[in-house]
Amino acid sequence: MSDEKQMIIPKEAEEKAWEIARWMNKKDQIAVNFGMKVLNVKPGSCVVEMKVTEKMLNAVGITHGAVTYALADFAFAVASNSHGQVAVALNAQIHYPAPSKAGDILRATATEETKSRRTAIYRIEVKRADGTLVGLFTGTVFRRDDRVEQWMKD
Amino acid sequence: MSDEKQMIIPKEAEEKAWEIARWMNKKDQIAVNFGMKVLNVKPGSCVVEMKVTEKMLNAVGITHGAVTYALADFAFAVASNSHGQVAVALNAQIHYPAPSKAGDILRATATEETKSRRTAIYRIEVKRADGTLVGLFTGTVFRRDDRVEQWMKD
Amino acid sequence: MSDEKQMIIPKEAEEKAWEIARWMNKKDQIAVNFGMKVLNVKPGSCVVEMKVTEKMLNAVGITHGAVTYALADFAFAVASNSHGQVAVALNAQIHYPAPSKAGDILRATATEETKSRRTAIYRIEVKRADGTLVGLFTGTVFRRDDRVEQWMKD
Amino acid sequence: MSDEKQMIIPKEAEEKAWEIARWMNKKDQIAVNFGMKVLNVKPGSCVVEMKVTEKMLNAVGITHGAVTYALADFAFAVASNSHGQVAVALNAQIHYPAPSKAGDILRATATEETKSRRTAIYRIEVKRADGTLVGLFTGTVFRRDDRVEQWMKD
Repeated sequence: MSDEKQMIIPKEAEEKAWEIARWMNKKDQIAVNFGMKVLNVKPGSCVVEMKVTEKMLNAVGITHGAVTYALADFAFAVASNSHGQVAVALNAQIHYPAPSKAGDILRATATEETKSRRTAIYRIEVKRADGTLVGLFTGTVFRRDDRVEQWMKD
Repeated sequence: MSDEKQMIIPKEAEEKAWEIARWMNKKDQIAVNFGMKVLNVKPGSCVVEMKVTEKMLNAVGITHGAVTYALADFAFAVASNSHGQVAVALNAQIHYPAPSKAGDILRATATEETKSRRTAIYRIEVKRADGTLVGLFTGTVFRRDDRVEQWMKD
Repeated sequence: MSDEKQMIIPKEAEEKAWEIARWMNKKDQIAVNFGMKVLNVKPGSCVVEMKVTEKMLNAVGITHGAVTYALADFAFAVASNSHGQVAVALNAQIHYPAPSKAGDILRATATEETKSRRTAIYRIEVKRADGTLVGLFTGTVFRRDDRVEQWMKD
Repeated sequence: MSDEKQMIIPKEAEEKAWEIARWMNKKDQIAVNFGMKVLNVKPGSCVVEMKVTEKMLNAVGITHGAVTYALADFAFAVASNSHGQVAVALNAQIHYPAPSKAGDILRATATEETKSRRTAIYRIEVKRADGTLVGLFTGTVFRRDDRVEQWMKD
């Protein structure tokens, strides 16, 4: 999607993105309770992993749609806030092309589709370890004037 | 949306919807862990309630988007499976017009927009006790050939 | 959805909404070419009608999905700009529960789901004359600082 | 997204995709009236181009959202029907990250995200000649049992 990989990212921006991601990974209660772990982050993108447990299943015994959504949503939050400007979700859409089950390791990869002063769009792919796409998420944020760093002081 | 309220629903269909809802409320691990409770159900519609706890907050201390989604998603699952035909989510979209916080009682009301043999669309409104809309969810299901009752035997 | 119907709308706001709607109905080239007609407008809501012609069909001879979208989208634009503050579409979603065909009169009814200073959400139902829902549209706008009246002078 | 590019596509499948695309480009009235042209097609993907004219503008003089949608929607229809199995749209979502204007050449590139027996998901990017993304579209189809070739005989 974006060509950010080819661009040279200032070391400072990347370090700030990591600081924000680590802080979010500790403070976000769903990330903590579901055992999500940020594996990588760059300004505008990230990779998050999680293992599906018995507590994450729906009535028919497969991974709950809301759990797949939660993983994508946390990757969305990390990627959209990684620039330092506070980003709040306006809306999101998720497709469920295939199921997953207890024991599966799910990996969410977030990339920035577009970013303007006030809004930005992110794409998050959630895949099983065998590469099967189990969630395809598109989210839009409103970018506020305040900074994530202000929240991190508290 | 639908005029189902005005229609006379056979007592049997309503009882079956309640049986399915009670079974889902017990077996769905997210519904159980988040303390969701089905307050009402009719074929194609339902009302579910949940109290926001400290474990459901995001990094900036408000209700996690994935929690609002989870409540809407469970109401979506109950409403779409209440007819007895197994319904699996194809995709869903959620808007977040306002936030909520720990202590808030959230109520999700699911209604059936349309239903055909193979697909159906549901609208779920999630509101705070003061009536403020905090989640607006639209979900589409694929309706399979098997019956929910088959799953309930296990 | 909204309780606006029960609210008393100042006569001035309603007249301004009509002025804006009439101007948009004349200037919007798709509305003009597709023969769309605003039947009613209030601040935040409107009703638009259109007759499906042979020029609006897809390869298999039914109404083109983009035509149903276009009608919903124009109703969305009128409703979201009717307050006088310029509203630009961020994103939209449409469901197609049933088809329509040449000769059908389609009616789009737009209502305001929520509105804040910077964003607002609209729901548009597109129905055939027999009441069948053929399009269900949800759209989000970003509300800019400029006024529609400034555009109307040109 | 998909790794189809690297896969070897049977010459026959590619020729059939072209036959279907050419037929749709002639029979689809919106494609004809808006001057859309299929530039490339493979099973599951395609590229369509169109020039924005004065008749495609909204009330404030930029490309109508429904026009950008129409181009994406036609690429969606060609890509999803290119396998030969009839595909009908269930729902679609579009984001508008940037505007375009009269005279702009817009290019829609459709790729297949996932495909199963009954449903499939497509991503369509609409770009201006300078590479700016003006529309980001995700669409879901229901795959019926009948064949496109049956329609082409009529």
